[in-house]
Amino acid sequence: MQTIGYYNGTIAPLEELMIPANDRSNYYADGVYDAAYGRNHKIFALDEHIDRFFKSLSMIRIEPNLTKEELKTLLQSLVDRLDSDEFCLYWHMTRGTALRGHAFPKGVTPNLLVTVRPHKLLDTASCRYKLWSVEDNRYYFCNIKTINLLPNVLANQTAKDHGCDEAIFVRNGYVTEGSHSNMAILKNGRFITAPLTNLILPGVTRLHTLAICREKGIPVEERAFSFAELMDADEVIMMASSVQGVAISHINGTPVGGKDTKTYETIRSAYRQKYLSETE
Amino acid sequence: MQTIGYYNGTIAPLEELMIPANDRSNYYADGVYDAAYGRNHKIFALDEHIDRFFKSLSMIRIEPNLTKEELKTLLQSLVDRLDSDEFCLYWHMTRGTALRGHAFPKGVTPNLLVTVRPHKLLDTASCRYKLWSVEDNRYYFCNIKTINLLPNVLANQTAKDHGCDEAIFVRNGYVTEGSHSNMAILKNGRFITAPLTNLILPGVTRLHTLAICREKGIPVEERAFSFAELMDADEVIMMASSVQGVAISHINGTPVGGKDTKTYETIRSAYRQKYLSETE
Repeated sequence: MQTIGYYNGTIAPLEELMIPANDRSNYYADGVYDAAYGRNHKIFALDEHIDRFFKSLSMIRIEPNLTKEELKTLLQSLVDRLDSDEFCLYWHMTRGTALRGHAFPKGVTPNLLVTVRPHKLLDTASCRYKLWSVEDNRYYFCNIKTINLLPNVLANQTAKDHGCDEAIFVRNGYVTEGSHSNMAILKNGRFITAPLTNLILPGVTRLHTLAICREKGIPVEERAFSFAELMDADEVIMMASSVQGVAISHINGTPVGGKDTKTYETIRSAYRQKYLSETE
Repeated sequence: MQTIGYYNGTIAPLEELMIPANDRSNYYADGVYDAAYGRNHKIFALDEHIDRFFKSLSMIRIEPNLTKEELKTLLQSLVDRLDSDEFCLYWHMTRGTALRGHAFPKGVTPNLLVTVRPHKLLDTASCRYKLWSVEDNRYYFCNIKTINLLPNVLANQTAKDHGCDEAIFVRNGYVTEGSHSNMAILKNGRFITAPLTNLILPGVTRLHTLAICREKGIPVEERAFSFAELMDADEVIMMASSVQGVAISHINGTPVGGKDTKTYETIRSAYRQKYLSETE
């Protein structure tokens, strides 16, 4: 199949898949999601994504009606149906289907949606991204991967309106993260990224990048860094499963980074190698 | 019909209505909503709800594909199909249907969902509600009626877990609003409610209640009031289209209010009279 949509046992081309209007995703964004990428029908870092997904479910009090192993088996079986070599795998679970009412509905089971689509990974060796900064006016549980994403949509579109690739959120003068990414800087050979608090998503790519830095002897600091530090950094790096790591050339139209290509390239190429070897 | 679901021209019993998985409500909560109540197939305060809805659309940059008048005609035609005397009317518009991607999709038209269900208004003359307070950790555009409602769902459920009817949000020691309502207090004969900022929804019931107070010579103050003031108020009043105004008996298990039943009853009965006469 060219695209795959799955909903509670029904499989269809994604563009044709239907869900009930009363799915609580539709009225309340009452659910959480995760997404992973891969090639050769192999899903990269699936365990990390599954673990985060189950944590997200727990934090919004949805009790999943399948185990981690059952979900992994299902996701793999859907990826196996895709014609394409490289893919994006997305899934979300919502609290259930019920007439609209804020409180948790009684006697319902969660809904599981899965989508699989072709996705060609960006060649990050030969490009740099541009960012546009926006005020981080989101809620205070950005550590949960919920589908309440309108603030992220609006931020991302603002970036696009300014000819940029991604938005970067700034809260009280400090960089939190992107609209669908984490952010890091290199300064004097050190890799600096925001700590895991309720202000950012615990990114899987962030986690792997930190591990790579440690393996390569690059000192890491998990601490809040300011917008001024961002603009003055030797390199700025955006991290997301969809792009892995990509260096930044401009923020708000001002050139940034480009002063430590060696360290950036060490990290970037190690990450790509890890991805290629694990999806061989 | 006993319940009505409408989606982009298709009409079905709400429980059977289906929407595409790729509706951006489902991935991003990328839409806004409104809801009104009525009886005898007459929709109460429809103009105010329509005006707010179009403002919400504008604030998240969705261009509606119908006019206010066309929407009003459509909503009335759907209400006319319902068997029930009293009803709840809900509608939302989302940015469109497209493969998942944060930025606004190109070349799509908005999706319109409408639901109509029986709803019996609470007899507020003979009951009082209980509230449970929660920290207001929501985003900073609560003035837009978006479907990013998971924080409201979780707050409301926490209230229910404590045997209460509604949650009350407190941000930095000040009362903002409820999970689906505005809040007010009476103190020394004055009606006090939070001002219209980005921290609260501009409630239609709040608007009407302020007008009634002014008509009846009750002084009003639109200003932030603290949690301490709330607990010490002569009366606490919750305002929502679904209940109009209802007095509060307990907050977090502690008795509150009950010290100015006369002023409360003046407001409550005037509101009910307005509703009854406009839906005659």
